[in-house]
Amino acid sequence: MNKLGLHANVWVRDWGRDDCVLAVNKTAELGFDIIEISAPDPKALDIAFTARQLDKAGIRANLSLGLDAESDISSGDPARVRAGEARLRDVIAAAGDLGASHVCGILYSAFQKYAEPPTAAGIAGAVEVLSRVGEEAARHGITLGLEVVNRYETNVLNTAVQGVELCRMIGLPNVRIHLDSYHMNIEEADMELAIVDAGEHLGYFHIGESNRGYLGAGSVDFPRIFNGLARIDYSGPIVFESFSSTVVGQPLCGILGIWRNLWDDGEDLARHAKTFMLAHLQAAREGKAEPRRSALPA
Amino acid sequence: MNKLGLHANVWVRDWGRDDCVLAVNKTAELGFDIIEISAPDPKALDIAFTARQLDKAGIRANLSLGLDAESDISSGDPARVRAGEARLRDVIAAAGDLGASHVCGILYSAFQKYAEPPTAAGIAGAVEVLSRVGEEAARHGITLGLEVVNRYETNVLNTAVQGVELCRMIGLPNVRIHLDSYHMNIEEADMELAIVDAGEHLGYFHIGESNRGYLGAGSVDFPRIFNGLARIDYSGPIVFESFSSTVVGQPLCGILGIWRNLWDDGEDLARHAKTFMLAHLQAAREGKAEPRRSALPA
Amino acid sequence: MNKLGLHANVWVRDWGRDDCVLAVNKTAELGFDIIEISAPDPKALDIAFTARQLDKAGIRANLSLGLDAESDISSGDPARVRAGEARLRDVIAAAGDLGASHVCGILYSAFQKYAEPPTAAGIAGAVEVLSRVGEEAARHGITLGLEVVNRYETNVLNTAVQGVELCRMIGLPNVRIHLDSYHMNIEEADMELAIVDAGEHLGYFHIGESNRGYLGAGSVDFPRIFNGLARIDYSGPIVFESFSSTVVGQPLCGILGIWRNLWDDGEDLARHAKTFMLAHLQAAREGKAEPRRSALPA
Amino acid sequence: MNKLGLHANVWVRDWGRDDCVLAVNKTAELGFDIIEISAPDPKALDIAFTARQLDKAGIRANLSLGLDAESDISSGDPARVRAGEARLRDVIAAAGDLGASHVCGILYSAFQKYAEPPTAAGIAGAVEVLSRVGEEAARHGITLGLEVVNRYETNVLNTAVQGVELCRMIGLPNVRIHLDSYHMNIEEADMELAIVDAGEHLGYFHIGESNRGYLGAGSVDFPRIFNGLARIDYSGPIVFESFSSTVVGQPLCGILGIWRNLWDDGEDLARHAKTFMLAHLQAAREGKAEPRRSALPA
Repeated sequence: MNKLGLHANVWVRDWGRDDCVLAVNKTAELGFDIIEISAPDPKALDIAFTARQLDKAGIRANLSLGLDAESDISSGDPARVRAGEARLRDVIAAAGDLGASHVCGILYSAFQKYAEPPTAAGIAGAVEVLSRVGEEAARHGITLGLEVVNRYETNVLNTAVQGVELCRMIGLPNVRIHLDSYHMNIEEADMELAIVDAGEHLGYFHIGESNRGYLGAGSVDFPRIFNGLARIDYSGPIVFESFSSTVVGQPLCGILGIWRNLWDDGEDLARHAKTFMLAHLQAAREGKAEPRRSALPA
Repeated sequence: MNKLGLHANVWVRDWGRDDCVLAVNKTAELGFDIIEISAPDPKALDIAFTARQLDKAGIRANLSLGLDAESDISSGDPARVRAGEARLRDVIAAAGDLGASHVCGILYSAFQKYAEPPTAAGIAGAVEVLSRVGEEAARHGITLGLEVVNRYETNVLNTAVQGVELCRMIGLPNVRIHLDSYHMNIEEADMELAIVDAGEHLGYFHIGESNRGYLGAGSVDFPRIFNGLARIDYSGPIVFESFSSTVVGQPLCGILGIWRNLWDDGEDLARHAKTFMLAHLQAAREGKAEPRRSALPA
Repeated sequence: MNKLGLHANVWVRDWGRDDCVLAVNKTAELGFDIIEISAPDPKALDIAFTARQLDKAGIRANLSLGLDAESDISSGDPARVRAGEARLRDVIAAAGDLGASHVCGILYSAFQKYAEPPTAAGIAGAVEVLSRVGEEAARHGITLGLEVVNRYETNVLNTAVQGVELCRMIGLPNVRIHLDSYHMNIEEADMELAIVDAGEHLGYFHIGESNRGYLGAGSVDFPRIFNGLARIDYSGPIVFESFSSTVVGQPLCGILGIWRNLWDDGEDLARHAKTFMLAHLQAAREGKAEPRRSALPA
Repeated sequence: MNKLGLHANVWVRDWGRDDCVLAVNKTAELGFDIIEISAPDPKALDIAFTARQLDKAGIRANLSLGLDAESDISSGDPARVRAGEARLRDVIAAAGDLGASHVCGILYSAFQKYAEPPTAAGIAGAVEVLSRVGEEAARHGITLGLEVVNRYETNVLNTAVQGVELCRMIGLPNVRIHLDSYHMNIEEADMELAIVDAGEHLGYFHIGESNRGYLGAGSVDFPRIFNGLARIDYSGPIVFESFSSTVVGQPLCGILGIWRNLWDDGEDLARHAKTFMLAHLQAAREGKAEPRRSALPA
């Protein structure tokens, strides 16, 4: 069975002590196994305090991150590449201290709307950094998830097969693809096949609706998503992500383009998300099992 | 909120006392509000015993029925029409004694594969009977649900608009359409629009998958079904129906064409169905509410 | 590229000389490669005349057939099995004379609503007959397509994996599965995967809408159908099938359960079907090709 | 019947005389009625030359435009608002000279990724400008289409109901909503319902796939799109839009985020798009007509 997770932005925008207590406890109360915490500045996290709350609540945390222009390891600019490597090492260290299993997000480029395509040299530089920090992550027992996102958030990885290509260039078993149904709905020709193409390289999965609101109240064809996960026997984390301007203020609303409020009650949203995920996970497993129920009488 | 129900055939094939106790208690345990009991022979039901079990369990029952060739009120044959009217009166009386709110199913023709189309005279005869028994049902506080089924199970009502037409000919507020997603998947050009076309005439709803197995493990486009129900603010019963040769033996397997076993564990199936229905009901409500969240700043 | 075909019932109900001339010429005019002719009584076809019309029009014909109760080779009854084998030999002989490449349909059981499940002995008998007539078909260069249909039309083959199982029992390269989107929409848990599961056993394909009317005006998820065909590089015939009471009279309306008229103008219907099929065939090929367009800059 | 159109970027990136001749002739050859020409700098278009080519080819052109930061009429900055009004007047004048029926695009804000939400004062300013230039457009017989786009391309109009709200604030019959399936797939809770909600305010429609490549090779649920258009009897233009880095160079690739090449052969793409649109337009009409075919025998 997959561990189910919840992004902390469903509850809080920051990660002060009160935020931490609230978000960790609510996540555990609803029966999720994981909380995913945004760590744009990993050194600012109070790791010891967070770890204690997680222990008390009986759940675990993963950290996620998008690099920025100043730390863009695909930029080809030595100073930025060095800054990016340092940030990645910081987040891996924090994750290690937190007992996290995964660090994920846009770990290979800036999280921004680019104006120019990537260059081969820039990508080679990112591969080099990710190979080094991937080995460092392995020492902490951490898997890196390279999040494949839409064209407005990176110019490097927009499709699963690009993610597979990058993972192969890196060549480490703990550097994997991180797919997200919100982004796949924009970029993939066939979402189910994209998951199958990712196959054993898939290490992390974000469930999000097309408009980033309630699951099922948008255009993502979720049966295809869950059928794909069932077909490859994906056993990694599945984490629900949703954003509302009620919780997420600036600058994140601006970065993500959240211009309208898709929900007010994060608890209702998250409870529904869990129900929705469980219903679809089981439906996909039953659908996959169906052919073995079709034997002719013998 | 809609009352959610479960067809008794998920648990049992017959309705002896042990069957009754098992089915009623299991249905209540899973948190359903209604159990739907097949009543091909309403006089054979032990109404008093069943009523006591329902009371103890805190749920209610509805009765369903398909007429047969010998009681086909659309046949134009006076003896069969009379026999059909008697059966309908019997099931209404039993439902009244049981405190049921609905009697539903193929109440207007035989439940069979026809070889010839219906005739205008036959339909007029069915309308006449349904007008009389509809008034009788009203006296018991019972709504009749005329189930629209696929071409292999009747030659009269295969689409929602045909159901609306028949309801209008009958002209009673307690004689309504009963739609079923399994049948709609075969017959309706647009399942969501069919529900909208049924509108206030819709009185009962069956949720079933395209192959009559686990919800979501087939080809029914359930978001359209639940969006349709949300759009007309449908507040009536929604009852899950599924058949497996594990539970349902002959002759019902033969009548329904159940040639393979789509599940073994009715409790797992029913629990999943409830989760699936709740997830989609809420998603549809949220989707419907979404536009009011889109106001421009003023 | 697949050869595209049209079922003769789009034009005519019988196969007199006028019917033949009309149907063959119209089919060719619209640019189809194949006409599929129902041959319940293969000896009644005027093969020489039909062959001349096909030659003049520059298209080819296939023959299709459903056995009946009296010729049910899955019945276990020696007389019926013998009668079925004789009918199959007749249709193969006719198809050979006609220069057909395929004989397809419900060649393994009666085309009827059964009341009882099949027996192992009955299926073994069908396998024996199909092995013999399959070899006979091979001598004429003909592929047999065993049509997988819904539960109301046979009790033997309702899913693709059952079809694969039967084909394996027969073990001849020219005895293959014939799938039909109309039936798959009812029976398959995942239509795309069913086609993938059929794989190299797939020998014939019927395109039909869920209500057997205009393609796209029903509930079949055609992208999944065409994606499946693209994924296995299916190169066999794809034949459009649709029925209206305008053309098809009794007894076929009764056998098929055609109780309402879904179209009046077969020419408009068929022209649209070709456009629809071409649009989806190409979309599926492009979708399949998409990943190779995703290479990272190198 | 709707007029079908093609965006000029399928053929060319600029609008020199050779570009104009090629694009206009190819568009006409494929049987489209309209070519949509990007007019970021309307004064740079050779209107007289273009008009002659259109006349010779027997088709018509529409102009489209996204304002930029310097001409953002929703900015609240008087100089930018004035600059925006001037650009809108220029494009309307050019369109009038060209005999165009529509000017469309992001006419109400900059075409850019915003970092902050819109303000009520900014929107009021845009309404004021659009009211004036809308009246000017009416004098030229031109309808303005306010394109509702995704969150990464504007912060003002992301959903159809927001578009209706803005149109109502403007209150002119020739200022309407312009919807685009590519953007709707990201933003709308229910694409079909969004079209129904737009209703008589809908004035222009862009058909695009989720990844902006071949229609059908992505995740847009096109039957819902075309069903919506059929339900409101939409009779305006439907224009296919697709972008490939093969044709579109910088800066447009950067603005649109086109990081991979989704096609090489614009002619094949456009021919397929027409086939796809015609197949779905007719399917939607037939589906809408289906209920009237369901009458009971009388």
